[in-house]
Amino acid sequence: MYTLYIANKNYSTWSLRPWLLMTQLKIPFEEMLIPFGSADWNKNPSPTGQVPCLSDQQSDGSVISVWDSLAITEYVADEYPQVWPQDKKVKAWARCATAEMHSGFHTLRSICTNNIGLRIDISTKMEPALLKDINRIEQLWTEGLDKFGGPFLAGEKFTAVDAFFAPVVFRFQSYGIKLGDKAAKYADHLRNLPAMQDWYQASLAETWRDEPHEADARNAGPWLQDLRAI
Amino acid sequence: MYTLYIANKNYSTWSLRPWLLMTQLKIPFEEMLIPFGSADWNKNPSPTGQVPCLSDQQSDGSVISVWDSLAITEYVADEYPQVWPQDKKVKAWARCATAEMHSGFHTLRSICTNNIGLRIDISTKMEPALLKDINRIEQLWTEGLDKFGGPFLAGEKFTAVDAFFAPVVFRFQSYGIKLGDKAAKYADHLRNLPAMQDWYQASLAETWRDEPHEADARNAGPWLQDLRAI
Ligand SMILES: N[C@@H](CCC(=O)N[C@@H](CS)C(=O)NCC(=O)O)C(=O)O
Ligand SMILES: N[C@@H](CCC(=O)N[C@@H](CS)C(=O)NCC(=O)O)C(=O)O
Repeated sequence: MYTLYIANKNYSTWSLRPWLLMTQLKIPFEEMLIPFGSADWNKNPSPTGQVPCLSDQQSDGSVISVWDSLAITEYVADEYPQVWPQDKKVKAWARCATAEMHSGFHTLRSICTNNIGLRIDISTKMEPALLKDINRIEQLWTEGLDKFGGPFLAGEKFTAVDAFFAPVVFRFQSYGIKLGDKAAKYADHLRNLPAMQDWYQASLAETWRDEPHEADARNAGPWLQDLRAI
Repeated sequence: MYTLYIANKNYSTWSLRPWLLMTQLKIPFEEMLIPFGSADWNKNPSPTGQVPCLSDQQSDGSVISVWDSLAITEYVADEYPQVWPQDKKVKAWARCATAEMHSGFHTLRSICTNNIGLRIDISTKMEPALLKDINRIEQLWTEGLDKFGGPFLAGEKFTAVDAFFAPVVFRFQSYGIKLGDKAAKYADHLRNLPAMQDWYQASLAETWRDEPHEADARNAGPWLQDLRAI
């Protein structure tokens, strides 16, 4: 039985990835949300002190802890092959795009801090390195959609590569990033998935505030809108 | 048939990972070394312009490109299961440690730039974030060795998790990083593998110099020794 430890839905992009993957693919799991900075944080079984972390209770009572979003993805894929596309070429592409997200896009991740309920003016921070990250994401999306026919990145079905780019869809929304038609349509498609809508609504409903994350958001640029519950 | 594109052995840590994995496990591949900044760089089939990149020629003549070290690892593992430990728990641990390396240890990677043939005095740069990275690596190694019995991180056999930490072994050598007995013994064991010795000797024999990498090494600290061919 899987238990997935995650943090605040409004902030935690790494939590969203395996949560969306399993929710969308109807893989059963129990969600354990521990807010950043709360007393519950020490319930997190991860040795890095980060989320996400998957606990998998075995039939002999022992527990396997899997403490990184991509390790969780491959661990779950061993049991549920639908996590990845079945075709060898498509699977290779999906894994490369996923690994690129896992290890890269640092400028986007640091300048456009994730805060799903905010709308922020990023115009003064539009530096070349940020544009490069945004352009590479658009290029990857367009390549996947063109090669495999959409509506998902690796074709007809939602797979892990969509889960890995899902947080970017919220980021682009928060910062009003303009995309070409094809990429914009994909972003809408992802944002409209019921599981994405559930995560979004839960983000807005959260009332916890974590000061380091709030400071990052103030630093990102002037706030145009704050849609979060007070 | 696999072709692995890599860069200078003296500099490129990401190249070493899949190269060592396949060499050590006797998985056949052809090596294509393209020096940083050389005219050959545009032969690299990776869409990110980075190495490593694996090209896999299919029987129908088409080619699958796999352009990230971890994606290469999982791609090869689909064909060669010995890439990962076979036991479910051990495999989960190995994948987590590998994913942590793939996405993290940024302070170590940026302060202690990789230059296998140099010995550099890092004492003035020993800041808390760097120590934290070093300590976490030592903790991971010790955990693996204790849990699974050594001499490799996941037990008796060399697997992908060793390949992912192999470059760190050269880094620790270049910067004279002191480790506890257990971790030091593991580092020696890895460094003494014939494939690691081959890579090391090839690094020293290289005469290409890439100015950005050389500048990083000058910036790291005073050079104590330069063992490279002139
Ligand atoms: N490489 C990790 C990154 C996980 C990560 O950075 N998690 C953040 C939240 S989104 C976290 O737990 N931060 C709290 C901390 O570092 O103390 C993964 O892919 O799971
Ligand atoms: N996430 C990538 C990182 C690859 C990487 O950073 N490669 C470096 C060499 S070690 C590179 O190609 N740098 C050249 C460049 O960025 O132009 C992987 O795991 O393969």
